[in-house]
Amino acid sequence: MTVRVAVAGASGYAGGELLRLLLAHPEVEIGALSAGGSAGTTLGRHQPHLGPLAERVLVDTTPAALAGHDVVFLALPHGHSAALADQLDPATVVIDCGADFRLADSADWERWYGGPHAGRWPYGLPELPGARESLAGARRIAVPGCFPTTTLLATTPAFAEGVVEPDLVVVGVTGTSGAGRALKPHLIASEVLGSASAYGVGGVHRHTPELTSNLTAAAGRPVRVSFTPVLAPMSRGILATCSAPIVAGLDEQAAREVYRKAYADEPFVRLLPAGTWPTTAATIGSNAVHLQLAVDQEAGRLIVVAALDNLTKGTAGGAVQSMNLALGLPETTGLSTVGVAP
Amino acid sequence: MTVRVAVAGASGYAGGELLRLLLAHPEVEIGALSAGGSAGTTLGRHQPHLGPLAERVLVDTTPAALAGHDVVFLALPHGHSAALADQLDPATVVIDCGADFRLADSADWERWYGGPHAGRWPYGLPELPGARESLAGARRIAVPGCFPTTTLLATTPAFAEGVVEPDLVVVGVTGTSGAGRALKPHLIASEVLGSASAYGVGGVHRHTPELTSNLTAAAGRPVRVSFTPVLAPMSRGILATCSAPIVAGLDEQAAREVYRKAYADEPFVRLLPAGTWPTTAATIGSNAVHLQLAVDQEAGRLIVVAALDNLTKGTAGGAVQSMNLALGLPETTGLSTVGVAP
Amino acid sequence: MTVRVAVAGASGYAGGELLRLLLAHPEVEIGALSAGGSAGTTLGRHQPHLGPLAERVLVDTTPAALAGHDVVFLALPHGHSAALADQLDPATVVIDCGADFRLADSADWERWYGGPHAGRWPYGLPELPGARESLAGARRIAVPGCFPTTTLLATTPAFAEGVVEPDLVVVGVTGTSGAGRALKPHLIASEVLGSASAYGVGGVHRHTPELTSNLTAAAGRPVRVSFTPVLAPMSRGILATCSAPIVAGLDEQAAREVYRKAYADEPFVRLLPAGTWPTTAATIGSNAVHLQLAVDQEAGRLIVVAALDNLTKGTAGGAVQSMNLALGLPETTGLSTVGVAP
Amino acid sequence: MTVRVAVAGASGYAGGELLRLLLAHPEVEIGALSAGGSAGTTLGRHQPHLGPLAERVLVDTTPAALAGHDVVFLALPHGHSAALADQLDPATVVIDCGADFRLADSADWERWYGGPHAGRWPYGLPELPGARESLAGARRIAVPGCFPTTTLLATTPAFAEGVVEPDLVVVGVTGTSGAGRALKPHLIASEVLGSASAYGVGGVHRHTPELTSNLTAAAGRPVRVSFTPVLAPMSRGILATCSAPIVAGLDEQAAREVYRKAYADEPFVRLLPAGTWPTTAATIGSNAVHLQLAVDQEAGRLIVVAALDNLTKGTAGGAVQSMNLALGLPETTGLSTVGVAP
Repeated sequence: MTVRVAVAGASGYAGGELLRLLLAHPEVEIGALSAGGSAGTTLGRHQPHLGPLAERVLVDTTPAALAGHDVVFLALPHGHSAALADQLDPATVVIDCGADFRLADSADWERWYGGPHAGRWPYGLPELPGARESLAGARRIAVPGCFPTTTLLATTPAFAEGVVEPDLVVVGVTGTSGAGRALKPHLIASEVLGSASAYGVGGVHRHTPELTSNLTAAAGRPVRVSFTPVLAPMSRGILATCSAPIVAGLDEQAAREVYRKAYADEPFVRLLPAGTWPTTAATIGSNAVHLQLAVDQEAGRLIVVAALDNLTKGTAGGAVQSMNLALGLPETTGLSTVGVAP
Repeated sequence: MTVRVAVAGASGYAGGELLRLLLAHPEVEIGALSAGGSAGTTLGRHQPHLGPLAERVLVDTTPAALAGHDVVFLALPHGHSAALADQLDPATVVIDCGADFRLADSADWERWYGGPHAGRWPYGLPELPGARESLAGARRIAVPGCFPTTTLLATTPAFAEGVVEPDLVVVGVTGTSGAGRALKPHLIASEVLGSASAYGVGGVHRHTPELTSNLTAAAGRPVRVSFTPVLAPMSRGILATCSAPIVAGLDEQAAREVYRKAYADEPFVRLLPAGTWPTTAATIGSNAVHLQLAVDQEAGRLIVVAALDNLTKGTAGGAVQSMNLALGLPETTGLSTVGVAP
Repeated sequence: MTVRVAVAGASGYAGGELLRLLLAHPEVEIGALSAGGSAGTTLGRHQPHLGPLAERVLVDTTPAALAGHDVVFLALPHGHSAALADQLDPATVVIDCGADFRLADSADWERWYGGPHAGRWPYGLPELPGARESLAGARRIAVPGCFPTTTLLATTPAFAEGVVEPDLVVVGVTGTSGAGRALKPHLIASEVLGSASAYGVGGVHRHTPELTSNLTAAAGRPVRVSFTPVLAPMSRGILATCSAPIVAGLDEQAAREVYRKAYADEPFVRLLPAGTWPTTAATIGSNAVHLQLAVDQEAGRLIVVAALDNLTKGTAGGAVQSMNLALGLPETTGLSTVGVAP
Repeated sequence: MTVRVAVAGASGYAGGELLRLLLAHPEVEIGALSAGGSAGTTLGRHQPHLGPLAERVLVDTTPAALAGHDVVFLALPHGHSAALADQLDPATVVIDCGADFRLADSADWERWYGGPHAGRWPYGLPELPGARESLAGARRIAVPGCFPTTTLLATTPAFAEGVVEPDLVVVGVTGTSGAGRALKPHLIASEVLGSASAYGVGGVHRHTPELTSNLTAAAGRPVRVSFTPVLAPMSRGILATCSAPIVAGLDEQAAREVYRKAYADEPFVRLLPAGTWPTTAATIGSNAVHLQLAVDQEAGRLIVVAALDNLTKGTAGGAVQSMNLALGLPETTGLSTVGVAP
């Protein structure tokens, strides 16, 4: 099977990571690479790590350029995918790494992103209950945000099994690459090196509704989420510390059993041995998520810590995993659980 | 006034930071510098940044070496201060940067540190209600841990005013220097660079009882604390994200007013302008703590983020501030609110 | 003595560092703070580490705004100082942190910066032979570039004493703050974290003519300089590795003696004890430069390694040191040799 | 073809990187994993990034444990390989990542490492002239040090073609992983973060004789080498800035042509397009080396900058590449030129 793939937004970080993974995918042939302002330049100028594609010339992101492929990945700024997707062949697998098709609720969309809501596509987080069914054969897929991927993998089992109260507190420490290649004052190296900072505090981060709606679905009742992202001086990686009040009687062994069961057959989710806590380093470049949990009886809370690579499992790896499902390929094709450490 | 000061543990990070500040203190003359295994070597070998003291020779940490000073700072491993302090002149101001005299409860001490409990000394966090009274003229002072300093400054006003429920969740992102100059596998640079990791999760961090007891005192009722430290690839700095459920009706303006009032006259606590969030970089090398808060009505929580330098305000700066109070000097003598950034 | 000081370019990194040092200077009163595009905003938005000046409002950089001060520091982009300086009172001490007045040779200026050459002002590197005489009472001073400061301090004694051939190779590892607060793609954190990169290789870095001309003056014959800057993932600091062929018979002891003599009375230059090599960390935030040297007899070269903080001794500290000399104040006033480490 | 492979020293950084690459090698089956002090523990404790091998138990490093494999990689401290290798089957391919068999000259060995010299094995740098012939079918291979690999790839063509004088200056900026997982005071994170430092200056670094002897062979006359390593705050990566005086008449185009020819058919060496300079980030996790050069006519020098990942191409990748040659497999099997960036 040869799958011909195009990537729109190939000069950005998500686009670069998609290409890194696709180069290692045995069934994929890389077709058109498109960009916005960088169209006409070679990929090597933007992605010097992708040697085999260095001479490829970026074309403008247009429906015509993306036509004739089996799969089209969209790695575009939020709000740019909807109009484009409308003009792509319904038989093409279109996988959007942006936010356009992640939310079911139009009011949420309008509040957080503005403009008309384009709808919701099957959600590219295969580990969620029922997700694989909706992804098999799908022709349109919305890849989750990197924070929701981390948090949902860390907490869905607890909410689904009802072992915690529906009141989640998340602090997500993230590297800078999640913000893309944007030239923003707070993202220049001199500001980031040697510093940690909070941003989007108090329920004002755009990933909040995506979290809330998915957890509410898992719990079968409304879940409240307090989410605070913290920027740390590293390029890749998210470490999310998630906690919620336990229901009476839950102890660590029982909590562990909930997670063990939920993830026993998941190829990319690894519950670490008791006593070992996740490090983002161990997941870099891989599609793995590492989990560990504790029950703090005095505080009355379950704490789950999850680590992953925001560009891989948090974006491009999740996208390729979803592509595999959509095409009927083995889900792990071209993906690895081996990180690049130290 | 000339205050003659000795530092025990001068070859470590806390000792080095004490000396950095004492060199800039106009009333201080630096006397004996002592160490354990490094005794007999020059300070310059261990603290190359302290040029003016490079040739000073470290002596053994003994009561005799520390005698004859007005102030003795102890920057020793936990459990080493109590025996030593007993043999120091009761008229000397002894300021312990370790944990030996931080806890009031003997059961807490035995559980978390082991061995006999040495008692509790006046707590060197002047911004706490009533603390300045207990520090004025004190001859024995226990400097708080760096995480408790951060968290207590971030949350005491809210608990004291009763605007939140007594149920605190803290995730404290910290640099590596808080762990001291220890040769531990997880602290070598290759493990830390490019990685975030959690440790001491689930109520098993030693700073928890110090937090709980002080907050319970402030709130006038038991406060439960879930505290998770996260190690980030930076040398200095703590960024603590603290949240608790709000009481009905609390909005951001009211919460802001609580903090504005509590800290209006505090020289080292700075509530940032609305919309600006703390970065640890802005506090490095200074005795300042920067705060910002938000009320997330949907999550029903007050979130307070605090940033400080763990070695300065979190340890050595707090110690010097307390010394100033004990000696009747202006509290800010020799201390600065100006950070070294970027 | 109260010296009233204005800073033009107060929102940038050099401007911020000037203000950090000026806040600690006992004879200085900080007057007008000016900026370009940021005029009208408060300083706190740009320099959150400068708490005491947070509420100060930036004004437009005009001759009128800068009038009425004893000293005006210019921390502007290259090419902006000349026109402005012309309109400032000749009795005012004007200290330019940019390149406009560093070069004596008009052809050099035109080649490297373009536009008409404004001339050369006394060079603000007091440790150079004869520099203090030209700075005493000066009303116009050009602060050296940070790489030239490092390299000239590292190598001038060897060239002046003729113990090396006039053929210098320098590799200068630098943090990112030397590039200022510019929004350039290669300076965003994701590109810098975890990476080292060379730039301006092959004699095309603007600091080359400044190096060559000063070393030629010291050596009394033409010195050739090969200079390569390397960007490393740190905010502050320059570590320059400088080497040149030795003249016959030079050994390490003799080389050491040359440096010992040259810098015996220099308050800010520290030749480290034999066997100890400089780290940039030990100099951060201080006006110190740390040196060490070796003679490699097999390679036939003297190697000198120098470390300093590019923003302090490399820019703002050197500027304040020069101001002190111009005003007849003790040269070390308001400056420290104590770094902020670790 | 299934190649059964053992790794001695599996708990260290070189061992971990070997296993990372071997897991992706289509012809390899991973057999015994051995260690020193860590024998008896699971690999997951030491290498959390190697998920698929997490449960594998480390055995003692003995000839018996390593018997019965087609290939044995030795990733041991210097001086430990020789005795062990003697007891391994002569038909087994033994690939030593340590220094024991890198040097031809016994006097060099005794001077730099001490103890009896074990001899020299075929040198695992296939890109050197004649190396592939000596590696084809080899049963004993010595993998070069990471600095020699970088420098030799950067400069051998220039010396072999005689376009530079035999007088090389190298400054090699390196991440911390090259030092292994050692608990040394200068390698703890607090010392490394935010700092650059030189070490082993003045011809006292052990990699010097390896450099000198290989370059002398390439040049056909003695080459003098001044080599200075600089430690930078990153985990992986070497960026070497190499320069030598040019012979009369050499210009950039001619130098470029020398390198273009030398590396036209090399799968892992990439001469970047003119104007683009190497970054270590672009090579991380890959077996690629990126080169760029300039001729500085005023300084009269050729400057070549090389970047690679010290653990991959600099150690484990070079070892696997050599294994492929020894076994008659396609040289690039299991190796990639795609880096993990940003």
